[in-house]
Amino acid sequence: MTGRLLVFEGVEGAGKSTQVAALAARIAGAGLACRTWREPGGTPAGDAIRAMLLDPAVAMDARTEALLFMASRAELLAREVRPALAVGDVVILDRFFLSTYAYQAAGRGLPQDEVAAANRVATGGLVPDLTLLVAVPSPVGLARVRARGASDRIERSGDDFHERVEAAFATFASATWQRAHPEAGPIEVVDGGGAAHDVESRVNAAVARRLPDLAAWLGEVA
Amino acid sequence: MTGRLLVFEGVEGAGKSTQVAALAARIAGAGLACRTWREPGGTPAGDAIRAMLLDPAVAMDARTEALLFMASRAELLAREVRPALAVGDVVILDRFFLSTYAYQAAGRGLPQDEVAAANRVATGGLVPDLTLLVAVPSPVGLARVRARGASDRIERSGDDFHERVEAAFATFASATWQRAHPEAGPIEVVDGGGAAHDVESRVNAAVARRLPDLAAWLGEVA
Repeated sequence: MTGRLLVFEGVEGAGKSTQVAALAARIAGAGLACRTWREPGGTPAGDAIRAMLLDPAVAMDARTEALLFMASRAELLAREVRPALAVGDVVILDRFFLSTYAYQAAGRGLPQDEVAAANRVATGGLVPDLTLLVAVPSPVGLARVRARGASDRIERSGDDFHERVEAAFATFASATWQRAHPEAGPIEVVDGGGAAHDVESRVNAAVARRLPDLAAWLGEVA
Repeated sequence: MTGRLLVFEGVEGAGKSTQVAALAARIAGAGLACRTWREPGGTPAGDAIRAMLLDPAVAMDARTEALLFMASRAELLAREVRPALAVGDVVILDRFFLSTYAYQAAGRGLPQDEVAAANRVATGGLVPDLTLLVAVPSPVGLARVRARGASDRIERSGDDFHERVEAAFATFASATWQRAHPEAGPIEVVDGGGAAHDVESRVNAAVARRLPDLAAWLGEVA
């Protein structure tokens, strides 16, 4: 096996973190090295940036916000993700640049072509092997987030903002959008509704469709 | 008078800060509101970013570094520079995006087209009315910096790095480069050699050539 980069994306409360942990456990259980990170953060510089980005007391221009997410991403890729992929690990990211496209471009109103061009500096052209887009209606996601009491600066950005984010993620699911954005790599939409173990089955099915050699490895051991 | 954006650029120790102060004093003496800022920094978020960027104890990927400079720039433009220009102030910046082209693209080896594209997110397309490129050979500049005992992370980057930076600034002076980079606006090279008051005379002559209405205003009052 060579290293693979898998990404989970979706609105707040879509259940991404639960699914990252479940898939990572399955991969590790099959004897493959699996590393996971959550954006922003994961490095000393990235953690400092994360604190700035999520602090509800810090007002910040949308362009600043977008570039800080990208700076954290560049550091995580250079220090952790690329070295892990180079030694053959499976890497799972809890959010990657589609979140910047959704939150900072669509949500905050920045031009998406500019955001995509800037993001190239962050990624250096690294393309995920598979992005799993966990879809739940944004009111469902936000209700889950509020139920657990979390409320950072971005979560507090208002219903209109979160509706634009949700609409952007829906756009990324279309074949037309994906053809125009080869940097995003293959994207599979996973229904995030219902119980976590049902979502997990859908994730496994999506991995089997798109990464049959990884799925075969997992299946042989399971 | 409408607001004008002037920029001083050049290697470390070129004498930029002295010239920024001298020109700002001349403009203020003529009764025009003049604001100056030094990159990176100038806002709460920017100052936090500045501390990260200049700390010799912080190792950082070149892409992270470039994006952090841009994040600081975006915040300074949104919070300070654009509002000042909107009310007709003259703004003088001690470094702007040509420094990112020189230090992070040429110096660190990042692709310049990617850096320029990302920088568009930071500037939103704001073009300086005039950039004064203060030219001194990089050993002269570095000797001045070392004489005053400063040594931050970027100053410590090695002679090869500083030679690439100096060569990049020399490239920006060429008409060919400027035609290919309309985002940079007009650039005047000012010989930074000799006494500060001689350099100041050359700066004033460059302003007179490129911004005759501003120079006329200054001349009337002087």
